[in-house]
Amino acid sequence: MTDPRSSPNRATLWGRVLVDELASGGLEAVCIAPGSRSTPLTVAFAEHPDVDVYSHLDERSAAFFALGRARRTGEPTALVCTSGTAAANFHPAVLEADQARVPLLVLTADRPAELRDSGANQTIDQVKLYGDAVRWFAELPEPEADERKVRSLRTTAARALSETGGSELGPVHLNCPFRKPLEPIDVPDAVPESFAETTAARGRDGPFVDTEQGTVGLETESARSIATALAEADRPLLVAGPADPADLQHVDRERVVSLAERIGAPVLADPLSGLRFGSHVERGGPIYGGYDVYAGELPDPDVVLRFGASPTSKSLRHALRDADARQFVVDPAGAWREATFTATDLIAARPESVVDGVLEALEGETETDDDWRARFDEAERSHWDLRDEARTDLADDPFEGAVLASVFERAPDPTTVFVSNSMPIRDADRFGRPRDAELTVLANRGASGIDGITSTALGAGSATGEDEPLVLVTGDLAFYHDSNGLLAIDRCDVDATIVLLDNDGGGIFHKLPIEEFDPPFTDQFKTPHSLEFDRLADLYDLEFDAVSPAEFADAYERSLETDGTQVLSVSFDAEASHRRRETLERAVIDGIESEFEE
Amino acid sequence: MTDPRSSPNRATLWGRVLVDELASGGLEAVCIAPGSRSTPLTVAFAEHPDVDVYSHLDERSAAFFALGRARRTGEPTALVCTSGTAAANFHPAVLEADQARVPLLVLTADRPAELRDSGANQTIDQVKLYGDAVRWFAELPEPEADERKVRSLRTTAARALSETGGSELGPVHLNCPFRKPLEPIDVPDAVPESFAETTAARGRDGPFVDTEQGTVGLETESARSIATALAEADRPLLVAGPADPADLQHVDRERVVSLAERIGAPVLADPLSGLRFGSHVERGGPIYGGYDVYAGELPDPDVVLRFGASPTSKSLRHALRDADARQFVVDPAGAWREATFTATDLIAARPESVVDGVLEALEGETETDDDWRARFDEAERSHWDLRDEARTDLADDPFEGAVLASVFERAPDPTTVFVSNSMPIRDADRFGRPRDAELTVLANRGASGIDGITSTALGAGSATGEDEPLVLVTGDLAFYHDSNGLLAIDRCDVDATIVLLDNDGGGIFHKLPIEEFDPPFTDQFKTPHSLEFDRLADLYDLEFDAVSPAEFADAYERSLETDGTQVLSVSFDAEASHRRRETLERAVIDGIESEFEE
Repeated sequence: MTDPRSSPNRATLWGRVLVDELASGGLEAVCIAPGSRSTPLTVAFAEHPDVDVYSHLDERSAAFFALGRARRTGEPTALVCTSGTAAANFHPAVLEADQARVPLLVLTADRPAELRDSGANQTIDQVKLYGDAVRWFAELPEPEADERKVRSLRTTAARALSETGGSELGPVHLNCPFRKPLEPIDVPDAVPESFAETTAARGRDGPFVDTEQGTVGLETESARSIATALAEADRPLLVAGPADPADLQHVDRERVVSLAERIGAPVLADPLSGLRFGSHVERGGPIYGGYDVYAGELPDPDVVLRFGASPTSKSLRHALRDADARQFVVDPAGAWREATFTATDLIAARPESVVDGVLEALEGETETDDDWRARFDEAERSHWDLRDEARTDLADDPFEGAVLASVFERAPDPTTVFVSNSMPIRDADRFGRPRDAELTVLANRGASGIDGITSTALGAGSATGEDEPLVLVTGDLAFYHDSNGLLAIDRCDVDATIVLLDNDGGGIFHKLPIEEFDPPFTDQFKTPHSLEFDRLADLYDLEFDAVSPAEFADAYERSLETDGTQVLSVSFDAEASHRRRETLERAVIDGIESEFEE
Repeated sequence: MTDPRSSPNRATLWGRVLVDELASGGLEAVCIAPGSRSTPLTVAFAEHPDVDVYSHLDERSAAFFALGRARRTGEPTALVCTSGTAAANFHPAVLEADQARVPLLVLTADRPAELRDSGANQTIDQVKLYGDAVRWFAELPEPEADERKVRSLRTTAARALSETGGSELGPVHLNCPFRKPLEPIDVPDAVPESFAETTAARGRDGPFVDTEQGTVGLETESARSIATALAEADRPLLVAGPADPADLQHVDRERVVSLAERIGAPVLADPLSGLRFGSHVERGGPIYGGYDVYAGELPDPDVVLRFGASPTSKSLRHALRDADARQFVVDPAGAWREATFTATDLIAARPESVVDGVLEALEGETETDDDWRARFDEAERSHWDLRDEARTDLADDPFEGAVLASVFERAPDPTTVFVSNSMPIRDADRFGRPRDAELTVLANRGASGIDGITSTALGAGSATGEDEPLVLVTGDLAFYHDSNGLLAIDRCDVDATIVLLDNDGGGIFHKLPIEEFDPPFTDQFKTPHSLEFDRLADLYDLEFDAVSPAEFADAYERSLETDGTQVLSVSFDAEASHRRRETLERAVIDGIESEFEE
């Protein structure tokens, strides 16, 4: 019986009204970690027919799972925990949600206010626990069957949901104090019969407050000015950085391609931009993916139009910095995400309105330097050819980039690919070739931690259709870090192909100068752990397949055709792998340079 | 070469001065999670001969390990991580350190200030990340070989260490921005030769600023007033709640016993009070441990002197609330840890000064109600007799309390016993009989989370002598939650006997009314997971021994005599176990009631 009007006590009423209103507002999923104080919320969610409940035992993993689901759908996912340190375990994912703009609704149960700082058990100060990382914080009043209070609760629910989805999507935190009884136990007169007939108790048909979020569109005048700058550019460039979840859902990729073609600009498409893979991609088209290697070697652009967050590629960021071109940074939230401080124009408007506005404003023919696009074509072809050459002699000289190349090349259409931070995302950026297939590529690039990777991937997988496989590409440190997240495979019924690049420690440190200082390099940076991950797979009843780099591509295809979750573990020597990356980079750059000289 | 004066660049200088000063101030251990931005700190710690470095891969576990070590020693342990979400993974342990008053020095590396909120990679807002949970927060200025700045750095190091150990021990957070190069790479002129001869560069012989923390002692007049109240009491009671690390090290237990004997008061000693076990305990003495069962059944005390945090025993807390006696709460930090709001007097002074002061102030004979102590003796004996009876037919009707009974009864003298939250600490409270043996019993009762349990235990174990074994008693949910913590057994060279009470889910929920509502009880509260923990033990190369309740005591003794780490897993049906607890409780209470009637 989920009708709030027939609630046996105040806490139950409160939980039911809140959940009822969130569901009416469109909330479809919640991740719950078990606890006592959160009982009214858990009970209400569990009995609500329209909200999928995912139960997790580790709050940190729960939060990343919710993050992944919200990242994939662009829609808010809720999170519930009990009072105390449980809430602090959400903190890493809340920070990622803030910076990656992922709509997350955090509901922390709490003990009543008078127990704060009283020495009471399992009670911490949860007020503003996540500081400035949330879009909105509110503390609910104590449950009571009072019309004004319940109206306020319904309004707060609508508002909380709405605040996750404003011009800058992100996390919202509601702290929810409850007094005993927490369970749906009858407390005579707690919810008077007269209350049942109030609007507050009944709610409305649909959300109590229907919310519409306006979008930030570009003024015609502004569009004209950008169009003029692009039309007059000799070497115009479009850069698509990691897309916010909101944009990933809404951007019209064909329009971006049209704009690029119209002004003669290459589109440098981050693997997380939503533009590197998809039906808009064709050979000879304006989408480029190999720039991480060659960005610094080509002529400088003079006008840049940049979408999304700061690009994954450091060499691209540096090339943009050094070009010191006129650089338009488009960000609907107006958030100055440009850490080299060379941008000249901030455009606070939705990417699609900028693309449409500029396309409309463009008049007549535009002209660029003769070989401007051709130079990119040449560099791009050279890069992918050399990459493919390198892959042919894998057995002699394996490197991690070859695995990432196969991951993207062999993934079915459609696939969701979640890529860990540290080396995998860099290799995805460098070795994932643009392709005419719907690959949704995701990563935690808001704060770029290696925590919660498995859970975020599984959360994303929980939201994809039956015919869309989930691939997770992770390093061994990230895989260890969120080992608890593997429990969700069974509990939340998500399957994945997990590609484990195992180089026994922090391979990324080979890229850094600390490599030359050993000690402390091995003990404190590379930190080999010798974990045998087949045993971890065993704990979670997963199939484990140790494959050589040469065998990987076939094993990967087989796994994608197979039900259940397989861990494909490929072992590498991090140092050798890194040296191979450097060699390949050198070869591409040499090729470009020698062409320059001709 | 660790001399700060010869540092090749500013970051290295900064790291070395900071670490040098912390070591001079007495810091003996640091837990480090690998990362790049923290390189100057990591390098400096690794090369310092006087600081033990514990390397961890999961920052959450690292922080709990540091917490455990500091909890056991009462001395600060430092923590180092890189920038970004890594720092947020420390949050749960920082909250526990705050509320349990554990000295923890958190050093978070950061990127330079201009990159904050700029879209830069792996950059979050780390300023005051832990809110009010730290005793002191400071952001270091950017490294520079400037005399005034380096003097300030040395002073800040001394102060940070000192702030962890004031009248209320706790965590301190230093945010440490670094600019590249982070590695000890030569940067010409970065550290001028002239700088090397300054006092700032050289430091001093010993700490730059020697700090002495005064202690809060009780005024004679106040002692006299408490003494009078206790002397005049008919039914005086001493209650020793969980002790702060500072008190655990310093309280003179014989003096507490003297005071109790002098005024005729029973001492109800929490397992975490430092008073339930030790050479001051003897049969017939004033130390009682079975009160969780009988506290509500005995006559009300009229004057209570309470030390430490709020007692673990809920029935004791309720009995004190209902007695509405004159209740002196002693807390050196003056922090009103009394959530029933029945205390009448707060004494902000160190426990030992209160005990000494009152003992000195007491004059003449004191007299109590005739059978006051005798009633406790009777109840106590009845409780332990019934507990022992219950243990004899374990095979037929096993219950978790019997395991806890053996844990304390059979532990060698000395032993450190770390007990998980949720049911284990409650069973330790109820079934751990006072004993003349040096058992240091610890738990995370500041915020009472089930997170970080294994790591906290291992951190405590890292600080005990070779002849003092470490026992961890944990439930299956806590064991799963901090499964990553097991890596420290090998990496940090700590052995333990791990007693795993496996009831496949949240046994504590059987104690709560939600048990009657299924669904959602099983899916959302009890949350059975079916994990086979022998596989987890296998992952970390631990011996795993599944023992029956009847076999436990012998297996436990064998493990304590054996090197290495053994997991002794005892399976229970949580519901049956809980019913047995209730039966036993009923039997003790019936015994006391029938005696009343006589």
